[in-house]
Amino acid sequence: MIFLDACKGKETPYTPVWMMRQAGRYLPEYMKVREKAGNFLNLCHSPELAAEVTLQPVEIVGVDAAILFSDILVVPNEMGMKLDFIKGEGPVFENPIKNEKDIESLLDPATSAKNLTYVYNTIKLVKKRLDPSKTFIGFSGAPWTLATYMIEGQGTKTYNVVKKMLYKNPELLHKLLQKVTDAVKFYLEEQIRSGVDVVQIFDSWAAALEKSAYFEFSWNYIKEICSYLKSKYPDTPIIVFPKGIGAYLNDIDGDFDVFGVDWSTPMSLAKEKLGNRYVLQGNMEPCRLYSKESTKEAVLEIADIMNNERHIFNLGHGILPDVPVENAKYFIDLVHNVTKK
Amino acid sequence: MIFLDACKGKETPYTPVWMMRQAGRYLPEYMKVREKAGNFLNLCHSPELAAEVTLQPVEIVGVDAAILFSDILVVPNEMGMKLDFIKGEGPVFENPIKNEKDIESLLDPATSAKNLTYVYNTIKLVKKRLDPSKTFIGFSGAPWTLATYMIEGQGTKTYNVVKKMLYKNPELLHKLLQKVTDAVKFYLEEQIRSGVDVVQIFDSWAAALEKSAYFEFSWNYIKEICSYLKSKYPDTPIIVFPKGIGAYLNDIDGDFDVFGVDWSTPMSLAKEKLGNRYVLQGNMEPCRLYSKESTKEAVLEIADIMNNERHIFNLGHGILPDVPVENAKYFIDLVHNVTKK
Repeated sequence: MIFLDACKGKETPYTPVWMMRQAGRYLPEYMKVREKAGNFLNLCHSPELAAEVTLQPVEIVGVDAAILFSDILVVPNEMGMKLDFIKGEGPVFENPIKNEKDIESLLDPATSAKNLTYVYNTIKLVKKRLDPSKTFIGFSGAPWTLATYMIEGQGTKTYNVVKKMLYKNPELLHKLLQKVTDAVKFYLEEQIRSGVDVVQIFDSWAAALEKSAYFEFSWNYIKEICSYLKSKYPDTPIIVFPKGIGAYLNDIDGDFDVFGVDWSTPMSLAKEKLGNRYVLQGNMEPCRLYSKESTKEAVLEIADIMNNERHIFNLGHGILPDVPVENAKYFIDLVHNVTKK
Repeated sequence: MIFLDACKGKETPYTPVWMMRQAGRYLPEYMKVREKAGNFLNLCHSPELAAEVTLQPVEIVGVDAAILFSDILVVPNEMGMKLDFIKGEGPVFENPIKNEKDIESLLDPATSAKNLTYVYNTIKLVKKRLDPSKTFIGFSGAPWTLATYMIEGQGTKTYNVVKKMLYKNPELLHKLLQKVTDAVKFYLEEQIRSGVDVVQIFDSWAAALEKSAYFEFSWNYIKEICSYLKSKYPDTPIIVFPKGIGAYLNDIDGDFDVFGVDWSTPMSLAKEKLGNRYVLQGNMEPCRLYSKESTKEAVLEIADIMNNERHIFNLGHGILPDVPVENAKYFIDLVHNVTKK
């Protein structure tokens, strides 16, 4: 598999490419399935439908890897937190975590990971149907990103609830982070057992933290998950994606294979700081997909910097719902053509 | 004036300090005046009340500089765009900029800057009343941040409207940016004439742009404003604050005095990249103000890195409304004590 080889830093005939949120609202075929499901959470809970949308971008857009269709918040949901997706507002937890008692009343990590059977069933269905030349990526949110949702109860601009806990009561936050970390370990382990070839850890809210807090409250837990998985599944590549920490790269280390570069971190900087130690994934600014000319400009520039070595092409964040499918296909084809040896 | 000396890189008996959003909702005295004004925009439009809240933090918290109380959006407002502040949603422009005709129908830069008389009147009142040992800072939004509001019509998470214009029709965006840039030049010039000692340019949405786009669509216009002001008022220090571009510091240059460091850019990195050429301002993570212990930890660390040289203490972003006034005072006093020579 070209994608798997690239994850391991081996030479490949071209640079493989996928897009974050590639199974999503820009695809009319996705919208159809989502309507059938009724709502977003139902779609995550229905292995047959989730498998269908997981496979769509491979067939329609021609990406080199499928990524499991699910949501990062299924983990806290199965730890016992009631979750709703409210139109126009996004995900909302009815009873956010406030104190030690709330943390203790969460289901234990092993049981909550076991309860995510619908995810493992989706994986088994996809695995059966996916073209064997394509790679299958599983994923989880990073503990910091998950804990932030669990404490804020919903999306936030200022992160002031979770940060108040962080600066006033750091031990309490660590207690929650450890419990979530354990759940994520078991969850990703079970995804690997169910058939994914690679796992990616999304730390979408990494940029909410100043440097010292980031390493203490987020990166250390990501590293713990990587070490755990590597000790049991050394051949399964791990991709990490801490979004927006381009100014912190000097201190990045850990037992993973691929570092996902977001668009706010120049690829040349990431290569300079991390390119010797990790394969890099990324990082076209997703809004460039609005224009083929802008897409071409970035693809050529990134391909030139990376020189088809130790690189997986991707966007620097998720594809937006109003991007024309035609432009997404243009991006994928262009990457394949430009990087062909 | 200690603050002015610090802006110019001269030795000072202690490191001066102020806080972004220091005239704001965390102060009960501010809330009283704001209630009297009826709404936020009225407060900006009333020189007597705006002067009162400008002076409050100097008297109550003991900061070394007052910053003009106003809003960055008064500039597009006086260019002819109807502005409302809607509770829970923030600022909203009724008719966002969509095309060339919309740009052409904006008032010309000189006239719109002239129409901001209420700001200049506020400045004159503050200047009369401010303790002469304290410094008075004027400000404007950067053209990119202002244009983004004018095109999006309101706050945005994805910036997809303005970015669609940027990648599909860059000339149109440049046309708007040039017009806004000219208005900002005249606006800051008139602020200096009315009595401010220093000006700060806030590029709050700098981090919305990838590196190449940032320099083309934002930084170049900031540099143009700096050069214009320096050619006419060489003794007035200029502070720039592009928030969240810690990964782009290698390419920063221009004719200004102080670089404002946000909390996501480690102070040590800013010092390494820019400390020889510019005085640095910043950068305690504002949420540390929730806890005196966390405040102390950061003040000691930043003071140690900067060594009371070429430094103005500040937060790395605005103070939040739910911070206790007592903690803000503690921060200011601590900076003064720790940095005393």
